Amino acid sequence: MARWEPGARERLVLAAVDLFVEQGYDATTVAQIAERAGVTKSTFFRHFPDKRELLVAGQETLSRLLVEGIAGAPAEASPLQAVGAGLVRASSAMGPANRELGPRLKAAVASSAELQERDALKSVSLAAAMTNALLARGVSGATAALAGELGVLAFKRGYAAWSEGDRDDEDDLGRHALAALDELRAASASLG
Amino acid sequence: MARWEPGARERLVLAAVDLFVEQGYDATTVAQIAERAGVTKSTFFRHFPDKRELLVAGQETLSRLLVEGIAGAPAEASPLQAVGAGLVRASSAMGPANRELGPRLKAAVASSAELQERDALKSVSLAAAMTNALLARGVSGATAALAGELGVLAFKRGYAAWSEGDRDDEDDLGRHALAALDELRAASASLG
Repeated sequence: MARWEPGARERLVLAAVDLFVEQGYDATTVAQIAERAGVTKSTFFRHFPDKRELLVAGQETLSRLLVEGIAGAPAEASPLQAVGAGLVRASSAMGPANRELGPRLKAAVASSAELQERDALKSVSLAAAMTNALLARGVSGATAALAGELGVLAFKRGYAAWSEGDRDDEDDLGRHALAALDELRAASASLG
Repeated sequence: MARWEPGARERLVLAAVDLFVEQGYDATTVAQIAERAGVTKSTFFRHFPDKRELLVAGQETLSRLLVEGIAGAPAEASPLQAVGAGLVRASSAMGPANRELGPRLKAAVASSAELQERDALKSVSLAAAMTNALLARGVSGATAALAGELGVLAFKRGYAAWSEGDRDDEDDLGRHALAALDELRAASASLG
């Protein structure tokens, strides 16, 4: 198995998340993040304008990929099939650094009210982005809203299964996200 | 028709939301909120410990009522019927002040990044509360997560229809929330 070596950008994100857990988001400085990642402050600023953007950057990429996947799904795809295409497209950009990040980010979010708010806004924004991409395909309002929420739930549940799973397997996130989407579709039959 | 007169607490919330729209959340002081509401600062502090809690207080009540309604639904109720019971219970506590608040709160949230984060956390927290209440009824993980999201969507969509609707009618929020829940249930059949 090829050994995975994170680049400077990935090291910065991992270092930041660990420091947020250890000492809190507010108390963590850019200098500390750079030092922990083994890079200079200038390297930090080549990748991110500030500490906050370090968390937001990934969200914008994720949102764009989900929307592109939904928009690019075949015209005859059902709303959930389009969401599945979005999940596959977004997952294709997620590598070992993202898998590594999962449990650490969860711990950081649990420890900070500010990060909980950011994380909540991320969920709501991703659902809104998927809903809008579905509306653009002509899906009706209630169905688009529901499918957008299902997409976020599937992404979160798939991501948790992937990042908490056995690291030695070569699974990609896409398989887990699609499995979670299938599980949620099946669950929708038992809502009553 | 009886004329509705808001009490000090309602006037404080409405004044605060309007000031947040006009001049931003950060720039708004407790003194300004009290003055706009026509009460003293001491009256403000009898109702709320600070500016932030003025927004959070309503969320905790709402969450508690949703959970109580779900927990109190008959044992044979389906997951969505239990969510419907939660929506009805929470709606019963919503009067003219809440109806009045809807469009203004929406404008305040649209104008402030901080309020967007708070509002997102509110949605995520309400979904988690309903999901946990359903898990406690023995509903399986995926179904409970999905039903919790449906509950939040139904509440939001019902609240929007209610607060944007004709104020002269005597409609209560519960009817709108249940109609939205029905619409979402129907939509789940067209997810594909």
